[in-house]
Amino acid sequence: MNFTLNILGTASALPMVNRYPSAQVLDVRGRLFLIDCGEGVQMQIRRQHLSILKLDTIFITHLHGDHTFGIYGLLSTMSMLGRTAPLHIYAPKAFGKILSDFMFSFGDGFKFEPVHHTVSAEEPVKIFETRSIEVLAFPLRHRIETYGYMFREKTPAKNVRKDAIARFGLSLAEIGTLKRGEDVLREDGTVILNAEAAYRPYEPRSFAYCSDTAPFPELAGWVKGVDLLYHEATFPCGYETLARNTFHSTVTQAAECARDACVRQLVLGHYSSRFPDVSFYLDEIAGIFPGAILASEGMVIDIPLKKYR
Amino acid sequence: MNFTLNILGTASALPMVNRYPSAQVLDVRGRLFLIDCGEGVQMQIRRQHLSILKLDTIFITHLHGDHTFGIYGLLSTMSMLGRTAPLHIYAPKAFGKILSDFMFSFGDGFKFEPVHHTVSAEEPVKIFETRSIEVLAFPLRHRIETYGYMFREKTPAKNVRKDAIARFGLSLAEIGTLKRGEDVLREDGTVILNAEAAYRPYEPRSFAYCSDTAPFPELAGWVKGVDLLYHEATFPCGYETLARNTFHSTVTQAAECARDACVRQLVLGHYSSRFPDVSFYLDEIAGIFPGAILASEGMVIDIPLKKYR
Repeated sequence: MNFTLNILGTASALPMVNRYPSAQVLDVRGRLFLIDCGEGVQMQIRRQHLSILKLDTIFITHLHGDHTFGIYGLLSTMSMLGRTAPLHIYAPKAFGKILSDFMFSFGDGFKFEPVHHTVSAEEPVKIFETRSIEVLAFPLRHRIETYGYMFREKTPAKNVRKDAIARFGLSLAEIGTLKRGEDVLREDGTVILNAEAAYRPYEPRSFAYCSDTAPFPELAGWVKGVDLLYHEATFPCGYETLARNTFHSTVTQAAECARDACVRQLVLGHYSSRFPDVSFYLDEIAGIFPGAILASEGMVIDIPLKKYR
Repeated sequence: MNFTLNILGTASALPMVNRYPSAQVLDVRGRLFLIDCGEGVQMQIRRQHLSILKLDTIFITHLHGDHTFGIYGLLSTMSMLGRTAPLHIYAPKAFGKILSDFMFSFGDGFKFEPVHHTVSAEEPVKIFETRSIEVLAFPLRHRIETYGYMFREKTPAKNVRKDAIARFGLSLAEIGTLKRGEDVLREDGTVILNAEAAYRPYEPRSFAYCSDTAPFPELAGWVKGVDLLYHEATFPCGYETLARNTFHSTVTQAAECARDACVRQLVLGHYSSRFPDVSFYLDEIAGIFPGAILASEGMVIDIPLKKYR
């Protein structure tokens, strides 16, 4: 039942020797979702002991090279490793041509089909779901069409307390009612309150990824209360003008978004190559969002399951 | 006056954590020629403390991804770093579409022009030259159109020995004759032999790159006598059938080519991911071409200038 973010790349436009372009793998209960796909992602995946063949679905935020150029090698390697299952790739519209160009020049002999799903959203919209999670896309404010993604577990059905079954002498129908979160109303007028007899087995977990974006008022509301927010922090304080001109955020703006959204944890990344060491970022936001995490290649951030009984 | 090969990648189709796809930089007197362009090449160039902006010309052997996918990030980074000079890329015909597709999707704002020169050759042909070197392309035998490249310094003009000038009382015209490599014939019938009065200041150096290829009889003749031969050795002995079916060479076949071509030094690379450790390769060819070099990422092979006086 894990919900784990693996950081594969924290660079912005210019990669460095130890800083790879943007990519993360979110492992939700063993299903691996790749979010962004910077150059070298296939090697970063191996380095992190994740399985290329187990990659489930890819989500690309936007079509700048530092978020995209790893797709070529990754798809080719998947093909060579024998993938046959279709690979679903969620990305802005322009990815369609990029993918078909790629398949024209390099797709001979592919035994699987990469399927492009066009992402388009003016506010958070559900674009993907499995039995246990759903993925929402929401627009970011960048130089080109860009989307953030939120991954959240679905609210689980409630469990009925064992002691309540005996205490109230619950019928199967009544247990079903309680599992749906409703109170039980008996013919004799008795009410069995849901809160008394049932409980959520665990709290659904959530992760939101915002890269790249200038700050804008709606964003905090859209990522409200997530367990983990990855927010780009391309620049430190003092670089507001450059951040504004390039449609990026400063670390302060990232922290303000996290604070306003009341997120549980903030992880920062997408650092400008001007700053090989970003440890001072944390000092700059100590008064806004203390305890933030500086993403680095190879980092694994686990969101533990909070179980109730 | 250096002539130095920098190994950036030694993987074959599947890269590994410590083995990058094919790429080399040949530094000829400070001009940097990139040969093949596997994924991650821009990071490998930085890792080796070479300058991306100083890259002069690119030579691509063939359009399999493991020799090509690094071009996207490299060109984008060159643009971001402010390159304005055209970048000349020698590659098979199909690269034209790959490049124009790339420029369509990612070329907005490029301030330099990547120029594709179509390579086509049925035997060694000169495709490029500077004042000091020339580059020849020759066909390899692979699954798709593939070329090897030979880089060789031009034969330098001869120098006239200082003592000969005094001893023979040489005129300026006679010095010019000797520099061109001719003997001097005086009106009185005296002959001043070129070998007596002039000498080559240095021996031209040469490097040939053969990846990927099945063995074929003409190849040794085409790379005859080079100072350094990089020959793919995808497989060890015992894998002849697989090598034949995939149009690759075994290490033995690579060594036989080097022996038959009487090359000074052989460097092996393009290793199959089946063999994370290829040190046993050298035992297999000890009787054919002893002293070969196993290429590895970060390796620098210098061909020193042999000066005469």
